[in-house]
Amino acid sequence: MTDSDQATGNTGVSTDLYTRVQQFYARQMQALDGGRFEDYAATFTKDGTFQHSPGAEPAVGRDGIVAELIEFHKRFDGDPVQRRHWFNHVVLEPLDDGSLRSTVYALVVTTRPGGKPLIAPSCVVNDVLEVEGGAVLTRSRQIDHDQLV
Amino acid sequence: MTDSDQATGNTGVSTDLYTRVQQFYARQMQALDGGRFEDYAATFTKDGTFQHSPGAEPAVGRDGIVAELIEFHKRFDGDPVQRRHWFNHVVLEPLDDGSLRSTVYALVVTTRPGGKPLIAPSCVVNDVLEVEGGAVLTRSRQIDHDQLV
Amino acid sequence: MTDSDQATGNTGVSTDLYTRVQQFYARQMQALDGGRFEDYAATFTKDGTFQHSPGAEPAVGRDGIVAELIEFHKRFDGDPVQRRHWFNHVVLEPLDDGSLRSTVYALVVTTRPGGKPLIAPSCVVNDVLEVEGGAVLTRSRQIDHDQLV
Repeated sequence: MTDSDQATGNTGVSTDLYTRVQQFYARQMQALDGGRFEDYAATFTKDGTFQHSPGAEPAVGRDGIVAELIEFHKRFDGDPVQRRHWFNHVVLEPLDDGSLRSTVYALVVTTRPGGKPLIAPSCVVNDVLEVEGGAVLTRSRQIDHDQLV
Repeated sequence: MTDSDQATGNTGVSTDLYTRVQQFYARQMQALDGGRFEDYAATFTKDGTFQHSPGAEPAVGRDGIVAELIEFHKRFDGDPVQRRHWFNHVVLEPLDDGSLRSTVYALVVTTRPGGKPLIAPSCVVNDVLEVEGGAVLTRSRQIDHDQLV
Repeated sequence: MTDSDQATGNTGVSTDLYTRVQQFYARQMQALDGGRFEDYAATFTKDGTFQHSPGAEPAVGRDGIVAELIEFHKRFDGDPVQRRHWFNHVVLEPLDDGSLRSTVYALVVTTRPGGKPLIAPSCVVNDVLEVEGGAVLTRSRQIDHDQLV
């Protein structure tokens, strides 16, 4: 155990764990925005759940998440849009079972050829993360949208 | 002392310290945007100062900061707005007295029910931070606005 | 060697290295946006290359980069604009020669006196970084723009 592994006052989880989660999110969201849906689904636990909008039924399991993403992206068929999910202010809180609650701001940036980026919606990502060895996985993800209250 | 505690070339403060500050800001801003003004004020030192606009008189001390936030948010009475403060590019520089100068980009994202996020203003946060044990506290905060020059 | 230096499962490079790169980018981009072009150029290797748009000829070497920035900013002569480059989701991948591939989302935020921030373009930064001791340097930078496809 090193200093980096120790709890750090009012500032949350260990340095190593916080940075692992930052890297995990960077890779996870570049996979999603790159259309690599199987890579995105592989960042969830086998029984992971993904609810991208408050009213939606959660997708369950990696195959279910891939199917949900394919279905969701049909609205962009023939529309050469580039979407990018930006994250900010990752707050991690250890839960009793060893998992982590993660609460993160998100903005979706959408650009079409020759156009300006549109930035909407503003969301909060509510994740439960599992960490085993050095690997981080999302057990559940539920997204709140600021415009839906 | 571990490798993480050592100064790192052209790249600023130690890994542990930098990550602590990232976590501190994530929690501090989620408190502010969640309307938890006392939690926000508690992230300042007892004699901490907070000047949210160049022309404004700084609020002093935790009670003063809470009072200032209540006063500032009266403009939103009856307006179900969700504001979120995004941060980017935290630069930390050790000062002679052991505190840190922190210079950070900020954008305010504002969403109303059924609306799109508005993103304004673009700011620079000028903080002095104190670090004791694992705890980070803001000693002073002064905000510059890019549209006010 | 500490835990922080070790590879971390599915989550990329070591904690120390990832955080060094975060600090490096924060300083590098505050230098660029502050108009400190020589400081910005000094964050590149001596033979570093910088291609800010897909069609542009890359600038080569620190003097070349400074000259390119002076030329590029002539379009803003007499225009008191403040530009800020925001970064998100830094993904680092070790390359065989010991350097790092870095893939990062970027948005340019532009504010004029009395105005609202305009946010465009949305880009991806494709860097190769060299790390020697604690120091990080950019060996090459090539920017993709989402609206150019």
